[in-house]
Amino acid sequence: MQAEQGMNRNSTGWVLSLRLVKPSLSDNTADADRLKKAIEAETGCPVKIGIGLVRKLPRALRDWDFCLKCVVMISGGVCELVDILPPGHRDPIAGLAIDLGTTRVAFRLICLESGRTLAESGIDNPQVSVSPDILGRVHYSDTENGLSNLHRLIIDGINREISHLCNRAGISPDRVFLAVVSGNTTMAHLFSNVPCTHIIREPYIPAFNAPGAFMACDLGLGLRDSAHVYIVPSVGSYFGGDLISGAVLAGFQDMEDIAILVDVGTNAEVLLGNRDWLVACAGAAGPALEGGMSSIGMTAAPGVIDAVAIDPDTRKMEIHTIGGEPATGICGSGMIDLAAQLFISGMIDIRGRIVREACGGRWIEKDGTCGIVVVPEGESATGSPLVISQVDIDSLIRSKAAMYTILETLTAWVGIGFNEIQTFFVAGTFGSYIRPESAIAIGMLPDLPKERFSVLGNSSLGGAALMLQSQKAVEDAEKIRDRITYIELNVNQDFMNRFSAARFLPHTDTSRFPSVEWSRK
Amino acid sequence: MQAEQGMNRNSTGWVLSLRLVKPSLSDNTADADRLKKAIEAETGCPVKIGIGLVRKLPRALRDWDFCLKCVVMISGGVCELVDILPPGHRDPIAGLAIDLGTTRVAFRLICLESGRTLAESGIDNPQVSVSPDILGRVHYSDTENGLSNLHRLIIDGINREISHLCNRAGISPDRVFLAVVSGNTTMAHLFSNVPCTHIIREPYIPAFNAPGAFMACDLGLGLRDSAHVYIVPSVGSYFGGDLISGAVLAGFQDMEDIAILVDVGTNAEVLLGNRDWLVACAGAAGPALEGGMSSIGMTAAPGVIDAVAIDPDTRKMEIHTIGGEPATGICGSGMIDLAAQLFISGMIDIRGRIVREACGGRWIEKDGTCGIVVVPEGESATGSPLVISQVDIDSLIRSKAAMYTILETLTAWVGIGFNEIQTFFVAGTFGSYIRPESAIAIGMLPDLPKERFSVLGNSSLGGAALMLQSQKAVEDAEKIRDRITYIELNVNQDFMNRFSAARFLPHTDTSRFPSVEWSRK
Repeated sequence: MQAEQGMNRNSTGWVLSLRLVKPSLSDNTADADRLKKAIEAETGCPVKIGIGLVRKLPRALRDWDFCLKCVVMISGGVCELVDILPPGHRDPIAGLAIDLGTTRVAFRLICLESGRTLAESGIDNPQVSVSPDILGRVHYSDTENGLSNLHRLIIDGINREISHLCNRAGISPDRVFLAVVSGNTTMAHLFSNVPCTHIIREPYIPAFNAPGAFMACDLGLGLRDSAHVYIVPSVGSYFGGDLISGAVLAGFQDMEDIAILVDVGTNAEVLLGNRDWLVACAGAAGPALEGGMSSIGMTAAPGVIDAVAIDPDTRKMEIHTIGGEPATGICGSGMIDLAAQLFISGMIDIRGRIVREACGGRWIEKDGTCGIVVVPEGESATGSPLVISQVDIDSLIRSKAAMYTILETLTAWVGIGFNEIQTFFVAGTFGSYIRPESAIAIGMLPDLPKERFSVLGNSSLGGAALMLQSQKAVEDAEKIRDRITYIELNVNQDFMNRFSAARFLPHTDTSRFPSVEWSRK
Repeated sequence: MQAEQGMNRNSTGWVLSLRLVKPSLSDNTADADRLKKAIEAETGCPVKIGIGLVRKLPRALRDWDFCLKCVVMISGGVCELVDILPPGHRDPIAGLAIDLGTTRVAFRLICLESGRTLAESGIDNPQVSVSPDILGRVHYSDTENGLSNLHRLIIDGINREISHLCNRAGISPDRVFLAVVSGNTTMAHLFSNVPCTHIIREPYIPAFNAPGAFMACDLGLGLRDSAHVYIVPSVGSYFGGDLISGAVLAGFQDMEDIAILVDVGTNAEVLLGNRDWLVACAGAAGPALEGGMSSIGMTAAPGVIDAVAIDPDTRKMEIHTIGGEPATGICGSGMIDLAAQLFISGMIDIRGRIVREACGGRWIEKDGTCGIVVVPEGESATGSPLVISQVDIDSLIRSKAAMYTILETLTAWVGIGFNEIQTFFVAGTFGSYIRPESAIAIGMLPDLPKERFSVLGNSSLGGAALMLQSQKAVEDAEKIRDRITYIELNVNQDFMNRFSAARFLPHTDTSRFPSVEWSRK
């Protein structure tokens, strides 16, 4: 059989073009077994063919003269035949990457033959109507019909967007054969209609970590009937598939040098290691890094301040808003920029205290709290001045100190210094806007040379898309997941000592931040 | 985890009683992964858990204090979790073995915990209403709705019988978690609603040989929602799962000595070998061996003659009918007995010609053909004499010659003599009534010592039941199937020479049948 068999695997690995040896009296292998063998020879995995496809095979193989395209899904070392198509099939064969964020859900439609992006979009997570934060949703999921309501919300929202997205790409949702879904562990549960209440109760046990692939119809997704959905595996309750996607996108599976991946958000999730070893941890950093706590904090959107510059000599402040529109508020990266600039220009001191005399006309007091006017009344979109208060700054400092302490604790646990980290990946939707210089200036990230930082953008979506663009990326995700040692951070005296030392700008031990010392007036 | 984990695998291997280590901060494996690991440790196979069961897990594990019973199905090296039950669960957990015969469908309900038989029954294959033979059904399946009609007929018939059978056993069909279905290749296709037209067209290609396990609901079977159905694999169009079941029941997988398994019917299917090598072939023997061609031939039923004895001195004929009722006809084994006795008593000669002077008053001529009265008019149930005609005898001799030639050709191909065969298994529903002495006397089976013959009865049902009684039997079926070399019998000059020589009673070469020579008057 081998001799005559012609095969071609496309660049993504998900669509195989096969030319089977035609059956003869001397080779009377059954249709399904013939196809299995050909796919096995190509993928090296045992192959499963569902009864629905077995029923189609005899006629299809003969109509197509034993040449065909096969869409496959390989996970956990098993190859499932998703669908079969005629060899000259020209309609797009698409896959959908979904980043299942708590706040936003992002989509990227990929051509499974070329790996090209066909369309991209995002929606607010419709579960926000139940609760903006994941904890609120988990509690709600425990009420009557709570879980199924949350499941319906996210599935209906995704299905609506699938229609729009496919429409925009000029294809039918019926042309989507595969989906890769990447999200934090709780979102993956809510998406799959799987109880998640134990994720937030000691000892914090998810129902699944590595569920593999399911049928889209079993999840209610409006894709092709035969479509398979791969859920990116997670390591535990606090280290989800979104991080694994990020690790794959960063390329940990092939990394010789030591690298670190940090997902900056309410939870700081950190992965440290290389292709040989991987250590992960997660810890609460507080919402300040996402602009959550501040009275003017918002998530990135048009009109939101995402960058700030202060002339160290004149202390003239320049703000940049998304889309250049009048300012409505400030997002996390804007907040970090602002704090860094305030500190470098001397408008706040090493404890984060507002230095009234350095602020001039920007100093303000309201409800017994002092603050700094970032955007005056007349220039803001709200009609009120946008003010960062002492409370906001204190909150940010706690968050940045927590983040730094987590990084310090993890590297100390492994026994390496920050300088041994060759690449420092900053991940997460929010992370994509961070300027490492600013994060270093406030002592949130270690003072490494700028070129060692790599900002990945939405690495959860990027990693999920990569898994549709390359079958190897799914293998990598599973390998990375299996190799990770998850460290439960002990908030002990050591941790608290480190945290206290990090509650200065940039740090009590200024020798750790030579570049900041140098730039600061 | 291993240290505390207590497990117990029941005798059949399909029900695991597991005591999982409870999760803790130092062992926060997810529920599904925890269960997978425990099942993997027990079965040595990768485990698949469907989304439906994942959804049940978190509550079930905690309600049951991490102790549970798991029903599993292992095939093709993969373990699928069928269902989970509380640890103290006392209701029966049943499996259903189905022999999917062309004419009869037989059922055996098995307790999956003890391996005991709970009930047994059989029905006529409802597809007989379309066509009594498989060829007619294949042709019909190619007409509009033909396949789905045939599928519905068999599934509806099976579902009705499942109700009766379960009722008789005092359990609900909902208690049946597994089914093992064993039938010829075409019946397996019709059962699964899979096109089978190419099975009868050169080069005779089935849609599947080793489909593995499906969900009962995907096949329309009225068992538990979560039930899995294992279809015993076949080797090709003419060597079906029924034969593989027989081979497992015979124990080829552990056999040191050479054995042969013969399924006697319209098709003679033969398996030769031992645990190290296996060779199979199939050939048309004609319907005479099943009593199909003869005017008085019937399948076994009350009133049908299944054994005949003729006093060699007085030529007094004694017949035995099933249930001792007045004779209605003669079945295949009765026919073989009759021919053997007629020959030994000299009433037919070595060419099978009726010896008029030896038959006395039993000789009869009708429509220009002579015959022998087996049951006189007054003693039969039909009101007419039951007569075996010269045409019937000629037809039987062709069939027995074909059978012997197939056996001779296969052993010659392997290069062994009949005397090297230590056990000669006779299989098939019909085969269960054959008396080897009679089959030897007419030269249908080789002249081996009587103790080497082993009559297996309905080995398709027996093998399927064994697979429910022992998980190893499914492994054995797959190993046996994979090891079989199927020989396409060439009907060449060699074959025709052997066939001609075998068209005598017992054979042209009487030295091959010393025991017959000795017994014959």
